Amino acid sequence: MGLIVQKYGGSSVADAESIKRVAKRIMETRRAGHEVCVVVSAMGDTTDELIDLAKQVSPILEGREYDMLLTAGERISMSLVAMAINSMGGDARSFTGSQAGVITDQSFNKARITSVTPGRIRTALDEGAIAIVAGFQGVSETTKDITTLGRGGSDTTAVALAAALGADVCEIYTDVDGVFSADPRLVPRARKLHRVQYEEMLELAASGAKILHLRSVEYARRFNVPIHVRSSFSQHEGTWIRAAAEGEAVEQAIIAGVAHDTSEAKVTVVGVPDKPGVAAQIFRTIADAELNIDMVVQNISAAATGRTDISFTLPVGDGRKAITALQKVQDAIGFESLLFDDQIAKVSLVGAGMKSHPGVTAVFFEALSNVGVNAEMISTSEIRISVVCRADVVKDAVAALHTAFGLDAESTEAVVYGGTGR
Amino acid sequence: MGLIVQKYGGSSVADAESIKRVAKRIMETRRAGHEVCVVVSAMGDTTDELIDLAKQVSPILEGREYDMLLTAGERISMSLVAMAINSMGGDARSFTGSQAGVITDQSFNKARITSVTPGRIRTALDEGAIAIVAGFQGVSETTKDITTLGRGGSDTTAVALAAALGADVCEIYTDVDGVFSADPRLVPRARKLHRVQYEEMLELAASGAKILHLRSVEYARRFNVPIHVRSSFSQHEGTWIRAAAEGEAVEQAIIAGVAHDTSEAKVTVVGVPDKPGVAAQIFRTIADAELNIDMVVQNISAAATGRTDISFTLPVGDGRKAITALQKVQDAIGFESLLFDDQIAKVSLVGAGMKSHPGVTAVFFEALSNVGVNAEMISTSEIRISVVCRADVVKDAVAALHTAFGLDAESTEAVVYGGTGR
Repeated sequence: MGLIVQKYGGSSVADAESIKRVAKRIMETRRAGHEVCVVVSAMGDTTDELIDLAKQVSPILEGREYDMLLTAGERISMSLVAMAINSMGGDARSFTGSQAGVITDQSFNKARITSVTPGRIRTALDEGAIAIVAGFQGVSETTKDITTLGRGGSDTTAVALAAALGADVCEIYTDVDGVFSADPRLVPRARKLHRVQYEEMLELAASGAKILHLRSVEYARRFNVPIHVRSSFSQHEGTWIRAAAEGEAVEQAIIAGVAHDTSEAKVTVVGVPDKPGVAAQIFRTIADAELNIDMVVQNISAAATGRTDISFTLPVGDGRKAITALQKVQDAIGFESLLFDDQIAKVSLVGAGMKSHPGVTAVFFEALSNVGVNAEMISTSEIRISVVCRADVVKDAVAALHTAFGLDAESTEAVVYGGTGR
Repeated sequence: MGLIVQKYGGSSVADAESIKRVAKRIMETRRAGHEVCVVVSAMGDTTDELIDLAKQVSPILEGREYDMLLTAGERISMSLVAMAINSMGGDARSFTGSQAGVITDQSFNKARITSVTPGRIRTALDEGAIAIVAGFQGVSETTKDITTLGRGGSDTTAVALAAALGADVCEIYTDVDGVFSADPRLVPRARKLHRVQYEEMLELAASGAKILHLRSVEYARRFNVPIHVRSSFSQHEGTWIRAAAEGEAVEQAIIAGVAHDTSEAKVTVVGVPDKPGVAAQIFRTIADAELNIDMVVQNISAAATGRTDISFTLPVGDGRKAITALQKVQDAIGFESLLFDDQIAKVSLVGAGMKSHPGVTAVFFEALSNVGVNAEMISTSEIRISVVCRADVVKDAVAALHTAFGLDAESTEAVVYGGTGR
């Protein structure tokens, strides 16, 4: 018996049948004696349909009105889930982000949660009811305007509510069984991970694993909220994301998994004068255009010319903006030309255990080399190694790393991962 | 220059093109120097689609969650209208019913507005912005739950805001040119009425004219808000609804128009003991089932049997509930049987001028008699005569009355009605 926050994504509430299945599941949790607070996303493609409508009436897809529009999707799904529960004899009450006390800053379309005051949720739970909350949305503290948290924001809503309510667990329901050691579409022998540390999940999410919104993991780590990622289509245990317990490290696998990301592009600034301050000018230009860059590489200067090349990656959709911004400062900075390449992929190896295992980097590059994958850019953190390669060899690269680090399951049927490393 | 409240119905904002047309029209009004507050309904069939979804997850189509669901439709349309205006260079801000200060009682699905506190609207207007408000919805004062005003409630939202803001006029935009002397689908020579008194519009709305929500007219009369019903597809002057001006009565036509209603059914309680208190028992039974009845007729008692028949009409959808309720008390009351008839129509003649013209009733029944229409039930008010007839002769009945009272236009092209009566 405890307090459980459950979050159901769009695929879990895509139609009336799915909503009824989810309602049944919520009822079962309540009947087991738990207090239940549920966060829902918009049904299936609802948000995309609303965006399509918006595109038809305005070229400006941002701001106060756009946020108000997008929040309608969760309003629909939360009411339907509550109605389905009530028709089964349960007592469910739905709450918008604003009613649930999700307070944000004033940044429309990508608001950050500043505080959560779930008084009405707490009252509903105290009265034995199930609370159903619209994900993805909040209300700005200063202007009382409705805001949205950006794509995937419902995960963050769920974790933030779990933290504010002191929930025992935040269950994130999705259409797969949990977090895998690699994308099963690329690696049939990918394993379901039994547990992952917050830091590993952060690196996996930042490296292209789509299963959880990055900010929700940051939030969970900050407030130490245990997350359980699992399927709404089965009763299987999924993946637990939480801090490493005392003494757990020795049992922990060195490597959690291999992530990949094909949503980035590479921009190369060619022939940059190799003198202090020039790189800063380039990245100030990018920052002023409000673009987030990921990896950066600067080649060694060719002594004869006194010039160098600087490459960086960023979301492919931001490529045009970056090129335009840089073209405007070409004369001021004095570089020679710009190259744009959207045929790249990023492949990342993540594992908290690699901190204390110096051989990991060597195995990593040998594995790639054995399948003929060339690393064009390299970036590392304490618990991650990433490379950029050609997009058409991403599957080879992921599979090679997955095998080299002993992540392949015994059979192609996914098994629970609880090994002690290799 | 003044303050104008405009209301656009679902057909006026049915798709992106319509929304852009409406946005343009709103901008023109603003550019003419007026302050503009706009109330919108949900796009086209959105509300029906939401109801369909609700039916798929629950048999209970009422209550708190159902209201929350239905309000999503206006949230979508208001955001899109605001975005369209902003993309044309205007400054529009959208507000939910709650944000607009539409306070209601706690009756979900058919809430009544108890007060309007449009502080945020007033601020937006003071800052030169156009306010776009979601129709049909409010927030309950006591529980802060979202409520809806029932079908057609957006008209009431518009009139209530116009009253609270002290607007010069409440413009109701629809897909026809105004209020007609009869339904043009039944009577091709129906005239567009130039002006109608509140009392006449109340009777017309109560008698089946669908153009305005009855409660919105009651509200307008109470707060003396002039309503201008007009088409969003043309620039034509429509129909003005307001109080009769001093001395206007002499110029006013005797008859405003002929309304009809095919949405009712007739229940006959056969063989009712003709003694005091029995009719009261029957209508107490109906009232306890929360059914509203319209017309009532009791036949003269047959002396030989000491029994009589009582007939009443009610919305056809409530027929089953009425029959069930009455069956339960059949033994207690001692009536013989129940008849249900949904093949009826109600035809009504409405005109403020008939108060002082005693010949109206005679002309009315002569006209029906001439086309062989039998009046099964009769009901009158000071400014209305209604009869129930067979549904299959409703067109004959309406056309005959329209001609007999001189309402036919010169040609089948609708003309502005400004005659002096006859």
